[in-house]
Amino acid sequence: MPRIVQKYGGTSVGDVERIRNVAERIKTSRAEGHQVVVVLSARAGVTNELIARARALCPEPSERELDQLLAIGEQESIALMAMALQGISVPAVSYTGAQAGIFTDRVHTKAKIKMINAKPVERDLAEGRVVIVAGFQGIDEDGHITTLGRGGSDLTAIALAAAIKADRCEIYTDVDGVYTADPRVVRTARKLDEISYDEMLELASSGSKVMQSRSVEFAKKYRVAFEVRSSFNHNPGTLVKEEVSYMEKVVVRGVAADKDQTKVIVSNIADKPGSAAKVFRALAAANVNVDMIVQNAGRHGIANLTFTVPQAETARAAKVLKPVLAEIGGGEVTVHERIAKLSVVGVGMKTHSGVAATLFQALADAGINIDLISTSEIKISVVVDLERADEAVRAAHAAFALDKA
Amino acid sequence: MPRIVQKYGGTSVGDVERIRNVAERIKTSRAEGHQVVVVLSARAGVTNELIARARALCPEPSERELDQLLAIGEQESIALMAMALQGISVPAVSYTGAQAGIFTDRVHTKAKIKMINAKPVERDLAEGRVVIVAGFQGIDEDGHITTLGRGGSDLTAIALAAAIKADRCEIYTDVDGVYTADPRVVRTARKLDEISYDEMLELASSGSKVMQSRSVEFAKKYRVAFEVRSSFNHNPGTLVKEEVSYMEKVVVRGVAADKDQTKVIVSNIADKPGSAAKVFRALAAANVNVDMIVQNAGRHGIANLTFTVPQAETARAAKVLKPVLAEIGGGEVTVHERIAKLSVVGVGMKTHSGVAATLFQALADAGINIDLISTSEIKISVVVDLERADEAVRAAHAAFALDKA
Repeated sequence: MPRIVQKYGGTSVGDVERIRNVAERIKTSRAEGHQVVVVLSARAGVTNELIARARALCPEPSERELDQLLAIGEQESIALMAMALQGISVPAVSYTGAQAGIFTDRVHTKAKIKMINAKPVERDLAEGRVVIVAGFQGIDEDGHITTLGRGGSDLTAIALAAAIKADRCEIYTDVDGVYTADPRVVRTARKLDEISYDEMLELASSGSKVMQSRSVEFAKKYRVAFEVRSSFNHNPGTLVKEEVSYMEKVVVRGVAADKDQTKVIVSNIADKPGSAAKVFRALAAANVNVDMIVQNAGRHGIANLTFTVPQAETARAAKVLKPVLAEIGGGEVTVHERIAKLSVVGVGMKTHSGVAATLFQALADAGINIDLISTSEIKISVVVDLERADEAVRAAHAAFALDKA
Repeated sequence: MPRIVQKYGGTSVGDVERIRNVAERIKTSRAEGHQVVVVLSARAGVTNELIARARALCPEPSERELDQLLAIGEQESIALMAMALQGISVPAVSYTGAQAGIFTDRVHTKAKIKMINAKPVERDLAEGRVVIVAGFQGIDEDGHITTLGRGGSDLTAIALAAAIKADRCEIYTDVDGVYTADPRVVRTARKLDEISYDEMLELASSGSKVMQSRSVEFAKKYRVAFEVRSSFNHNPGTLVKEEVSYMEKVVVRGVAADKDQTKVIVSNIADKPGSAAKVFRALAAANVNVDMIVQNAGRHGIANLTFTVPQAETARAAKVLKPVLAEIGGGEVTVHERIAKLSVVGVGMKTHSGVAATLFQALADAGINIDLISTSEIKISVVVDLERADEAVRAAHAAFALDKA
């Protein structure tokens, strides 16, 4: 009997009515002859409520206790979903992360899954039950509850799908799938039928909010194909899977804009060996995630370093740079917040030239200035003014004819 | 270092402010040199909220899923309390029932504790942490979450106190201790400094709402002395412990009225062997808890059976009696709801005569009619009109001079 793992997010279990709707979907999947495992998030809003209550009692609670507290959000979802299924005559049983045998390391609030003992889940499936598993959570080897961090429920679903060798894995969300661009920005954006892991990863790190990179990386590593689709309709979604040869016909798969980046320029530093290394070593030590980096060739023994960092890390970056500049003999830091990073992504780029030229021409035709440029095998990213970002996305989308299948 | 177990109920952890107050109490106990284990209930109201949500999805959810759902109430309490302690610089760790090694049988919603593996709790105590344990819940040997039923958190506290050989066990509640009578009824009611397990048991089954019988029975079996006291002040409470010789001087310890009983009369049944047995076998099969039983001597071959049952079980009792009456050849069932059971309790009764006479005289002097009478070694119970119940309590309280130490 084919096995399917379905993951539903917090908005899909937001109230009694939505829980009932999801239960009906699950019933249908089961009636179609599937063994069904369901992974659920906490109902939308619960996590923030709990964190607010925690902070009222302790400004910096231990992460161990935060995990113990937050885990109840999914536990509520799974028990209620099991009951909703029982209410429509579908045998169901709910499992916390611990009960589902999801063992993690000891790193509270951002644990990594080490091993899944799926025997109890498999036994229940064999006995005809739908198994509802709490996403986002696991247990370490001493029995402490851990949570997996952002996007943790997607990760639970993909890891479980790998563990029970599921035939399908469906990630239900509030969007219909992965689009060639954000449909709110590009009216003609088209939903993709499929996309490779690598393209999905580049889109995820380029501002597309559909899924966190780590879940996609996990799926790639364990070769779990999964479908991103909406829980609010029955439209087919986007299948994320290994790259196959016919995918190569498509040069560019999608366009994304990341508006949460800041550009930092370290100017007027002495152009001598080791200066750049010192700058980036300090940033790494402070856990600042540096993205695009450009070093201008030095003139008169003076160089400029430009890079982008997430907005939330900008202040930290500026702070750690001060002592470094003093050490390497001067220089100035300027921060430009009103920027966006535009990326075009596609596995076909590997074997096609001219993608960069097409992109640059399209932006030039639209009168949009390009600031930084960086490239990977399957991505080209440029920094543009934040105010022109949406326009740039539309120009790129049109230039690569992404509105046509 | 002396060990203490403290149990706080749902009203004591009802909001952030109360959680803070309890945390301060715990801090004080620790500062006085105790190793402290704290057992918590779910915050008042949470359990009913969760049950309402469950019933909206499924009129009769499985008890396994109800337990899975309800267990989150205590898990929230313990994590928040651990954080509150951390917030005032007290090292603390929270444990669910499963993490605290509380193993139960498989009877969901009313599980019995089979075994406690207190090693993790003892290790944390030795390392200087306050250990916060979720009351009311445990785990069966297959890892399913179970709950212990009414009064379950008291039971958790007493069982843990036995398991870790605690020097003291304190049950914090919203009353100051055990009184000679309900202080709302008898203005001169006096708080008892101590009371024996057996007296506490008789009071519990006589309408005194301080604690459930099963927790007291468990304490008696494992010889755990515990103190019932208030979490809203610092008054000493009532110590519940084994009977000691000097207790015997007290003939009557307290008076209680149970207003949740109904009197059922089965009249005009054939006075032949086996009729009564058939009646009570049918009631037992329907899980009706019969309390006081009186059979009037038969005249003209006709007998009357009178007994009391909890109000909530009256309809069920009447229903199962119908076919029985048909079988034994007729009879009528009448139900009297406006009654109360008055009990006077004291271990000293065993060796003192005249207690019944004193009670009956006091009620007679007050013009209160006595209906049924039943006695145990340390208790005399009578049924009176519900409307006269409070008056009867006051009369008995005065007759035994319970207002005087």
